[in-house]
Amino acid sequence: MTTEHDQDVELLRELVQREAWDELPEQFDKLHVQDISEVLSGFDPVQVKAAFDVLPRELWPGVFAYLGPESQYALLQSLEEDAEEGRFLLGSLLPDDRTALLESLSEEAVERLLRLLSPEDMKQALKQLGYPENSAGRLMTTEFVTIRPEWTLQRALDHVRTRGESEDTINTLYVTDNRGRLMGTVGLKRLVLNPKDEPVENLVSDSAIVSITASEDRAEAARMIQHYDITALPVVDKTGVLLGVVTVDDVMDVVEQENTEDFHKIGGMGAMQLSLREARPSLLYRKRVGWLVLLVFMNIFGGAGIAYFEETIEAVIALVFFLPLIVDSGGNAGSQSATLMVRALATGDVRMKDWLRLWGKELAVATGLGVTMAVAVWGIGLWRGGAEVAMVVSLAMVMVVIVGSMIGMLLPFLLTRMNLDPATASAPLITSIADICGILIYFSIATVLLGVGSG
Amino acid sequence: MTTEHDQDVELLRELVQREAWDELPEQFDKLHVQDISEVLSGFDPVQVKAAFDVLPRELWPGVFAYLGPESQYALLQSLEEDAEEGRFLLGSLLPDDRTALLESLSEEAVERLLRLLSPEDMKQALKQLGYPENSAGRLMTTEFVTIRPEWTLQRALDHVRTRGESEDTINTLYVTDNRGRLMGTVGLKRLVLNPKDEPVENLVSDSAIVSITASEDRAEAARMIQHYDITALPVVDKTGVLLGVVTVDDVMDVVEQENTEDFHKIGGMGAMQLSLREARPSLLYRKRVGWLVLLVFMNIFGGAGIAYFEETIEAVIALVFFLPLIVDSGGNAGSQSATLMVRALATGDVRMKDWLRLWGKELAVATGLGVTMAVAVWGIGLWRGGAEVAMVVSLAMVMVVIVGSMIGMLLPFLLTRMNLDPATASAPLITSIADICGILIYFSIATVLLGVGSG
Repeated sequence: MTTEHDQDVELLRELVQREAWDELPEQFDKLHVQDISEVLSGFDPVQVKAAFDVLPRELWPGVFAYLGPESQYALLQSLEEDAEEGRFLLGSLLPDDRTALLESLSEEAVERLLRLLSPEDMKQALKQLGYPENSAGRLMTTEFVTIRPEWTLQRALDHVRTRGESEDTINTLYVTDNRGRLMGTVGLKRLVLNPKDEPVENLVSDSAIVSITASEDRAEAARMIQHYDITALPVVDKTGVLLGVVTVDDVMDVVEQENTEDFHKIGGMGAMQLSLREARPSLLYRKRVGWLVLLVFMNIFGGAGIAYFEETIEAVIALVFFLPLIVDSGGNAGSQSATLMVRALATGDVRMKDWLRLWGKELAVATGLGVTMAVAVWGIGLWRGGAEVAMVVSLAMVMVVIVGSMIGMLLPFLLTRMNLDPATASAPLITSIADICGILIYFSIATVLLGVGSG
Repeated sequence: MTTEHDQDVELLRELVQREAWDELPEQFDKLHVQDISEVLSGFDPVQVKAAFDVLPRELWPGVFAYLGPESQYALLQSLEEDAEEGRFLLGSLLPDDRTALLESLSEEAVERLLRLLSPEDMKQALKQLGYPENSAGRLMTTEFVTIRPEWTLQRALDHVRTRGESEDTINTLYVTDNRGRLMGTVGLKRLVLNPKDEPVENLVSDSAIVSITASEDRAEAARMIQHYDITALPVVDKTGVLLGVVTVDDVMDVVEQENTEDFHKIGGMGAMQLSLREARPSLLYRKRVGWLVLLVFMNIFGGAGIAYFEETIEAVIALVFFLPLIVDSGGNAGSQSATLMVRALATGDVRMKDWLRLWGKELAVATGLGVTMAVAVWGIGLWRGGAEVAMVVSLAMVMVVIVGSMIGMLLPFLLTRMNLDPATASAPLITSIADICGILIYFSIATVLLGVGSG
């Protein structure tokens, strides 16, 4: 699978690069639609269009579905003269993929594309775009097969046979009452394995139905699918009427995207939907500059702290040698505990009510870390500045590490409490706050112990 | 679903807390096994054992399966007097869940548990533990249904009926030749929808089979399942013989675990398999202390840099005010680009061959960021230290941000090139390296421009 297949993918990339359109069809035969999509999404619309011209028509929907919103829209635009082809491609998308495409576009673009759809598809697309951003309703597919509880398994199976060909997934069938309210689910497997004359209701389990309402967050849908180990989660309205289904493959993309956003946030940036490879420098600049400039102004306080202790510094200049060390250590310990906490809150491992117990644990860990690091710097302090400086540096180290860790642990909790995203407690922010505290602690201890300066 | 259900979960937690064993069964009825497991995994083995004593026997396997390795082993140990119950529980686990339990235990514990298994299960468990750690072979389940290409669909369906009851998933059937080599897959859906007298081989698609060899990394299995949008990935040996199946639910846990590890590493810690809630302080200490102490010693170089410029500092003490600002800004910009790069490498968005293009882009972004930040500090420099200091601070800011960003971008690439984990280029490491460079750059510029000191 691996090496030969990787070579085939690479060869396709080269052929498109060389614009060797005649040789593409042979290469298309060897690859899956997902691989073809991945290769094409790296190219300009003109080249994607040329590749589609030689792509067998039956592969169009598959390759188009995996292209990603940007390349999809670019291709649809380049097909503009030929409304028929655009209509075919857009109509071939599953409802959830179509919503993903539409929600990433400008209003005019959405209007243009909606005109390509059949009245029924258009109605469905508009309804789905009506759900809040990042909701389960936007993520769901509206293609599913429902059966009735009073039917025999034979009738249910016949129904599946007539409906199933056009539906993407029939591994799970949804049992609804006469108002369309979800009563339970039955796996195709159980339909096949049980006697044909049994009624469907015998197979519906008694336990509570696992479902989600359309307006809830898609991250919650992801958590439920993961928690209950299911491959499809029914989406209902407030009265329990079945509206659609969120499938595990959609959810994996959501999990990856949310993880990437948390990663970016803790790294001190705005979350980017775009990939690093595709993002233009101007976007990267905008996502990064905000935090950096904010942190510049926070650091002014650190500078003011230093200015306040000017006399202490002038009296014992050796204190400056240890400034980066002390300041960094508090920031590092703090960003460690913030990272641990943000991740634990994101995966649901830790909840708000755990904070007191975790606070005690963090205090124990931080004290241990601080003492270890104080021992490590004691010798260096002795060598560079004598016994008194060694004492100041060691004492400051213990306190700075404890204070930094506490800030790193508490800030994500406080943000969660205020219904803000805990990932905003980014490592650079924690570092900067811990820095200011570190400067104040360090020079305060020095001023008192060395008996000098303005303090 | 949400609130009422959440209350039921909370009530169960309270009942176990209060040790109100009599009231548990009623609460068990309202919940899914996954919910019961989640509640119980927060308690001590003694309480878990007491809860199992009142848990209906038919729910034992389900609740046990989701408990997680630690609670599972603790429960098995507390059942020790009663080997029968331990055998029942261990035997009820799916092969992949059993492997997950065994691989987390000490050798003696594994031996003790293996003795509880049937000879067949024991052989299978030992075989699976023989695959490398974190391999697809350890992750796969060995329960699957195979059919032969020459069978009619009717015969295949009959075979599924006899085998299916004992197998967890039969949504996908595996077509193998007479040596057990995988020839393709057929969905249960297609078996049901097509005429019964057709041969199986007509349904097997021509395109290359998506599969993975048992020794490959489980992260690669996760990537393939995500890329090809499938719910189950066949695992084969080097000759193509089907050994097992990795399913999408196992893969979601892998994705989450690997993301957590990357998160911890970029935060400057060792990766933890344990949850933050469950980890003891001693483990947290060990995972965090290594980096912190290493960074202490790296910071000594920063201190040495400052000592080298002692005369410059004594001549213009105002330079010290800006030291934390300059030094932090380089570190912050660097940890931003390291975070972006580590995540992009982890998700496969960026590959090694992209580095030159990304290097150019990062240079452009960093220059923009540096100039913006220099403008921000110019005024402050002018106010606190006069025109010359403002010039030094601004110039140093541009250079420090560019150098920090370059280090942050290049280090993950270099680590990947040396086949090391790019996530080791943690934010604290980048910060410390950027700090040292920042100190040298800042005071060098000061020494030259202000015409003072030892430089």
